[in-house]
Amino acid sequence: MKQLEMLIDRVISRVNINLREFNFDVKPYIRDTVPTDQLIKFYAFYGITSHHPIYFHFRHSNMAGTYFLGKCMVDNSVLYKSDVRGDELKEQGDVLHYEGMEIPLNKDQEIRVRDSFLIKTLVHCYPHDPENLDLFLIKRSVSTPYANIHGSPLDGCFLGPFSTVDLTTLHDCVIGTYAYVQAGELSHKQIEPGQIWVRNGNVFDFSFRFSKEVLDKYISFEAGKGVQGILMDFVEERETDFERLFDTVHLEAVPVPVGASLSRYAVLKPKSKIGENVLVAQRAYLKNAWMGKGANAQENCYIIHSRLEGYNVMAHGAKVIHAKLGKKTFAGFNAFLRGKLEAPLSIGKESIIMPHTIIDLDEPLDIPPAHLVWGYIRNQDDLEKHSVSFEKLSEIEGEFVLGNMRFRGNGRQFVESFQNRIEHILTDNGAYFDGEEKRGHAQKGQNISFNIIQPYPRGELEGLYPAMDINP
Amino acid sequence: MKQLEMLIDRVISRVNINLREFNFDVKPYIRDTVPTDQLIKFYAFYGITSHHPIYFHFRHSNMAGTYFLGKCMVDNSVLYKSDVRGDELKEQGDVLHYEGMEIPLNKDQEIRVRDSFLIKTLVHCYPHDPENLDLFLIKRSVSTPYANIHGSPLDGCFLGPFSTVDLTTLHDCVIGTYAYVQAGELSHKQIEPGQIWVRNGNVFDFSFRFSKEVLDKYISFEAGKGVQGILMDFVEERETDFERLFDTVHLEAVPVPVGASLSRYAVLKPKSKIGENVLVAQRAYLKNAWMGKGANAQENCYIIHSRLEGYNVMAHGAKVIHAKLGKKTFAGFNAFLRGKLEAPLSIGKESIIMPHTIIDLDEPLDIPPAHLVWGYIRNQDDLEKHSVSFEKLSEIEGEFVLGNMRFRGNGRQFVESFQNRIEHILTDNGAYFDGEEKRGHAQKGQNISFNIIQPYPRGELEGLYPAMDINP
Repeated sequence: MKQLEMLIDRVISRVNINLREFNFDVKPYIRDTVPTDQLIKFYAFYGITSHHPIYFHFRHSNMAGTYFLGKCMVDNSVLYKSDVRGDELKEQGDVLHYEGMEIPLNKDQEIRVRDSFLIKTLVHCYPHDPENLDLFLIKRSVSTPYANIHGSPLDGCFLGPFSTVDLTTLHDCVIGTYAYVQAGELSHKQIEPGQIWVRNGNVFDFSFRFSKEVLDKYISFEAGKGVQGILMDFVEERETDFERLFDTVHLEAVPVPVGASLSRYAVLKPKSKIGENVLVAQRAYLKNAWMGKGANAQENCYIIHSRLEGYNVMAHGAKVIHAKLGKKTFAGFNAFLRGKLEAPLSIGKESIIMPHTIIDLDEPLDIPPAHLVWGYIRNQDDLEKHSVSFEKLSEIEGEFVLGNMRFRGNGRQFVESFQNRIEHILTDNGAYFDGEEKRGHAQKGQNISFNIIQPYPRGELEGLYPAMDINP
Repeated sequence: MKQLEMLIDRVISRVNINLREFNFDVKPYIRDTVPTDQLIKFYAFYGITSHHPIYFHFRHSNMAGTYFLGKCMVDNSVLYKSDVRGDELKEQGDVLHYEGMEIPLNKDQEIRVRDSFLIKTLVHCYPHDPENLDLFLIKRSVSTPYANIHGSPLDGCFLGPFSTVDLTTLHDCVIGTYAYVQAGELSHKQIEPGQIWVRNGNVFDFSFRFSKEVLDKYISFEAGKGVQGILMDFVEERETDFERLFDTVHLEAVPVPVGASLSRYAVLKPKSKIGENVLVAQRAYLKNAWMGKGANAQENCYIIHSRLEGYNVMAHGAKVIHAKLGKKTFAGFNAFLRGKLEAPLSIGKESIIMPHTIIDLDEPLDIPPAHLVWGYIRNQDDLEKHSVSFEKLSEIEGEFVLGNMRFRGNGRQFVESFQNRIEHILTDNGAYFDGEEKRGHAQKGQNISFNIIQPYPRGELEGLYPAMDINP
């Protein structure tokens, strides 16, 4: 494994050089989270469909347990149990809209990962950076378990555990544990752990920060001990359920209704029900989950003892337990929404649970319809300090502070931009498929053939994958 | 599947053009044997090791169920459930010996298949053609179930079911059902079904031909009915035993002794015993098989209720049932050696069962040591008409006829060339490994990682594999 060890050392030193102004060392995050011998245990896999352009290029890399779809290039990198989903990349001839400008693409977009180490990370969507539209580049960067890189090109960045960078181009930034950033472009910034930040130029700016006590309980990282907390325990307890899926080449397909799609790499436990146009992505976990028409569960979602009435968007990493979700409710990235049998959670229709919200109940809680919800909520009292109705928020023009949350700008535009995004996601996922028109991922994803690739099993090159180019 | 159908039609017409002098049509062999929808059901796979140079190149082809090892290129071809084993190819710098000349290789050898359709075919060894040492080319050719292409470049050829071409370069030839040819070079020849022919220039020439009655019973092809007979029934009855192997990504390794190798794609049924330095290749089938030290079972071998004392060579496709094989016995390609519980077969040490020999017993039979055996044998009477001691054969210089067998040339050289070849095979397979030196396939093959590739699941390209280049 000499070459692989050298590759890892090289990634560490390159990323540390980019982050030297913060005196930040990525090494413990890698070394405490992924022992090198784990990197030879798992195969990588890629999907072939007739719906997306494909191109796969792998060089001098390890990709243990990682899944690729679309157009993906990997050089001098380690990708561990990650998902690199290039199925939303834009294609040659597509026109992108940016602040009133129309920019036609003269080549297909590609995801390219170079000199990086990604751990259990989701890479999805397309780059929104108007300066670099044909390349979704992740370069000299390290990401840690359950980070989401959503339409966000990175250069010289570190992403902490369960953090999310969303539609933001980042240069030389450190994103703390469980931080969420959606800010267009950032450079040379350190985002503190538990910071939630949504900014759209001068139009609006939402920010909230979890207390250290809450973070220590739910998700934290300490050198020598690795990633810890309730969120990590929750996913690790369910990890063995996925093993059978990865160990079998052909699984008998579970019948699903018209227009629905259930990934053969998703866990489907008893008493679950899949409705029409439902999309269940790989690495999603359903147990006693009632999925109404057009609902979706993305990668790393857990839907347990819960009922989704329909057209619900569960963003990557959202977890929902003992909950009833009204129509068109939205749970953002890595939201952790845990009711109990005797303390169920109910979310009224169209309400939006912000990314990285923690709801963890000891008593029943009803969230009314058409509310925005964020932060850490244990009960009705907490809810009142961490939610606002769309109606009230839409009236805001200027500053609005509630507990730890601070909002500035135009409330109506904030609500509308969220609602637009949810509509886009539903459309993209095929929630509105009518049997002929309005196809989305749920309908397109039904025919994927999976290809399994493995590294050298021995010798100097042990753990590295052979160089590979796969074209249509 | 439109493109795949066009590809198949194109192969058929190209091969038929090459074989027009015989007025031979390959179409029924393909169409009656492999319905096109079978071609989308199975994955292809290739092995990555640190012992052989690798290079895989696949273009505009279907490779359902086929396994590749070493350096293999496939263009515009269909390879169905075949084995393309490039692990014995020669490498740059190796020196080949041909009639006293030494020819150094200035590049690695490669197996290249173009414009061909191979069905359940074994491709192995390296090209012995001194005019084309760097390329093992199979071009515009069709082969049918359980054919063996052993070190034999082909151009414009047809190989019938269970036929073998061995160390022979062929141009525009038809090789009949169950025919075996080892003749150095052949062009524009039609070899009749059941013809066994070994020729080494003017040194020796062995020939035998099965009667039509025997062929009709054991192996035949008829348009509209496909491949039929006892040999085909025998393998088809055991086909489901292989399914589990192909459906699981990681099988728990069965422990084997030092220096031994058991492919994870081999069937190992109860009461089998693997000795030191034993080699069991993929698609071999062992049931109550006692494999003594250094014994081997190649692809498509079946060893059932049998004991191999050690250093036994079971060539590709050899089948042994209710038999006891003395040390260093050899069973040639596609030999069918079937005793019964009450009518066991015993083969004395060092005896050589010629390729394509059928022994099918209703009474016990003892073959003495150091004998050459061929043809069709049911009992002691048959044995006497289809065997000769090495001692007697070694005295022959000229012509020797026994029943349907005709030998001309130098008997001693015939025996010695067989014995040398057996020693080579044992050495190559690692039968003589002493824990440090004399490594062969058994020792090198212990660490292979398998990679699984699949075709487009839908659309115009359904059944075709994406273009792929895999380099070290």
